[in-house]
Amino acid sequence: MTTAAFADRIRRAGLVAADHGADVLLITPGTDLRYLLGMTGESHERLTCLVLPAEGHLAPPALVVPRLEAPGLAGLGLDELGVEVVTWTDSEDPYLLVSDLAGGPTRMAVADGMPARHVFGLRDVFPEVGQVLAGPVIRELRMRKDATEVAELRAAGAAIDRVHARMGEFLQVGRTEAEIGELITAAIVEEGHTGAAFVIVGSGPHGASPHHDVSGRTVERGDVVVIDIGGPLPSGYNSDSTRTYAVGAEPSADIREAYAVLQAAQEASVAAVRPGVTAESVDAAAREPITAAGLGKQFVHRTGHGIGLDVHEEPYIVGGNTLTLEPGMAFSVEPGVYLDGEWGARIEDIVVVTEDGCERLNTRPRDLVVL
Amino acid sequence: MTTAAFADRIRRAGLVAADHGADVLLITPGTDLRYLLGMTGESHERLTCLVLPAEGHLAPPALVVPRLEAPGLAGLGLDELGVEVVTWTDSEDPYLLVSDLAGGPTRMAVADGMPARHVFGLRDVFPEVGQVLAGPVIRELRMRKDATEVAELRAAGAAIDRVHARMGEFLQVGRTEAEIGELITAAIVEEGHTGAAFVIVGSGPHGASPHHDVSGRTVERGDVVVIDIGGPLPSGYNSDSTRTYAVGAEPSADIREAYAVLQAAQEASVAAVRPGVTAESVDAAAREPITAAGLGKQFVHRTGHGIGLDVHEEPYIVGGNTLTLEPGMAFSVEPGVYLDGEWGARIEDIVVVTEDGCERLNTRPRDLVVL
Repeated sequence: MTTAAFADRIRRAGLVAADHGADVLLITPGTDLRYLLGMTGESHERLTCLVLPAEGHLAPPALVVPRLEAPGLAGLGLDELGVEVVTWTDSEDPYLLVSDLAGGPTRMAVADGMPARHVFGLRDVFPEVGQVLAGPVIRELRMRKDATEVAELRAAGAAIDRVHARMGEFLQVGRTEAEIGELITAAIVEEGHTGAAFVIVGSGPHGASPHHDVSGRTVERGDVVVIDIGGPLPSGYNSDSTRTYAVGAEPSADIREAYAVLQAAQEASVAAVRPGVTAESVDAAAREPITAAGLGKQFVHRTGHGIGLDVHEEPYIVGGNTLTLEPGMAFSVEPGVYLDGEWGARIEDIVVVTEDGCERLNTRPRDLVVL
Repeated sequence: MTTAAFADRIRRAGLVAADHGADVLLITPGTDLRYLLGMTGESHERLTCLVLPAEGHLAPPALVVPRLEAPGLAGLGLDELGVEVVTWTDSEDPYLLVSDLAGGPTRMAVADGMPARHVFGLRDVFPEVGQVLAGPVIRELRMRKDATEVAELRAAGAAIDRVHARMGEFLQVGRTEAEIGELITAAIVEEGHTGAAFVIVGSGPHGASPHHDVSGRTVERGDVVVIDIGGPLPSGYNSDSTRTYAVGAEPSADIREAYAVLQAAQEASVAAVRPGVTAESVDAAAREPITAAGLGKQFVHRTGHGIGLDVHEEPYIVGGNTLTLEPGMAFSVEPGVYLDGEWGARIEDIVVVTEDGCERLNTRPRDLVVL
């Protein structure tokens, strides 16, 4: 990302904040701050906070930061961005500093992920100021990816596809889910991620639990296994892809039949993605064929979630979300069927909306591959 | 941890909450929830929340959790603990569920790390109920480690000591700080951690920035290098130890002299740790010899921080903290001196307060070792 790109994000965030009736955005470390300034790291007990006034307010943007950490900001080009760095030491009250910098707001929007300790610290120095979430402001920017972001998501998709391509090395009869998970974690790093954000190895009946991670269960010949994996690249952009495998033997006709329904549903919902349709219409496109086959109750979750610097972000592909899709929106399409106590299956690709449809960022075969 | 131990923590948390005038504790995923239930994971956009009424309130404890994630709770023994599991689906309002379970509180204490999105979600369903932080309640428990926790911290200390013992493999002339950091990160995992929580390689002038991490600077012969590293064991308990090394050559007399002051200060402050003294007295014991040597302004941070499931937690060893130390409290003792633009040094051990003094959990040599 160039300094100009960050400057543009800061400018647009100020505009959208004004549209939303917030006088100032207060953003603590997390993915929103990474998006706005390129600054990594997480919130901790010492306050770091970007004070970003809405368009029309006089105060310039400032970053309040513990003095200890100021040297680490050297590479961010904050000077060029016009962001003043205001440091504090352990004997000072950082919330008062924010209050001095915020230009007398009547409504402040705080990062969705801001820890309660800082939310209340700010509330105490601004007792009369309404606190709302900054998420609805920042997501107006974040859910529309620019070309650089799409390129990062594409690279992330290719990286996790390389891990799925090697699945035969990891997913073998006689290994436990946990052992397989460790091998996959190592491969996720080898293929270019900085780490694994999640590794689901749902074998046999565990596949019927969509958020199962790994367990001590040993994979047996004939198991159907859901593998849902992903993590961030060094840029912070995430991968997330699910494939379902059969181990050592062709699955039964019942399973193959249900899987075919799922695969058709995933194709149909990807085919439904284009600018101008609603998020919920993509969910409906996945749900209809599954419901028609009598498996509607076995598809227990939304069809997808946005992805970017967070693994889960806007837009959510779920019934009730009437958001209209636009080029640059990136999200998962991941219907599943789950037969309690027996088996489960899910197929997940990340897609990005293009001018006339979408581009799939995961391209591994979607059949029920027998390993 | 046994179920009985978790049950005792839940019971004591309810007692302390009542002492603090909170009717209910609302604890989202994070280290507080790991401490109370053994439950790992982080907060995300779907609410998971332990509803823990204070002693004297009628509502039983309950865990509100997305239905998708309920199967993952099987190993926690929540039944035995008397914690009811209440699931919700994407079409329900989880905050209303919490409100139904909380037994009509007038004051709620929320986890310090609860994300603003959930703080405000709860505020909106409890508009008349005061929100305060749960940290002051939970830390009464967490800062007094039991024998199992001390054993975990001891194992963590031994694990990071093994990494420092191998420092000659990593810290070599001609490598960049980032390259050295990658080698150390791998060693942190090899020695039994689940990952590196932080890796500071502050070489030459970078050593003067206490929270520097790594950079592209190449280590040169004669550099003084601050190595501050740690991470969690599988149990979640963290290590954290700093040693300062000279690379390839004896440092100058000036540096050796200042380092001797620092080393004496670290010894003096560790010697000051025993039950009945205040946290700030340990800080003063570190600060006095450094100030006497004219380096007081070069020691720019507190002397230490508590450690456990979080790398930084109570008690903080800092001027103004009049907390009386008790057996079982565990924290870092890590004075440093930082000469802007030139070099820095820090020596850090984790100590745990015993009946008559303290036990050091890091035992590597504290001299300015030449590698």
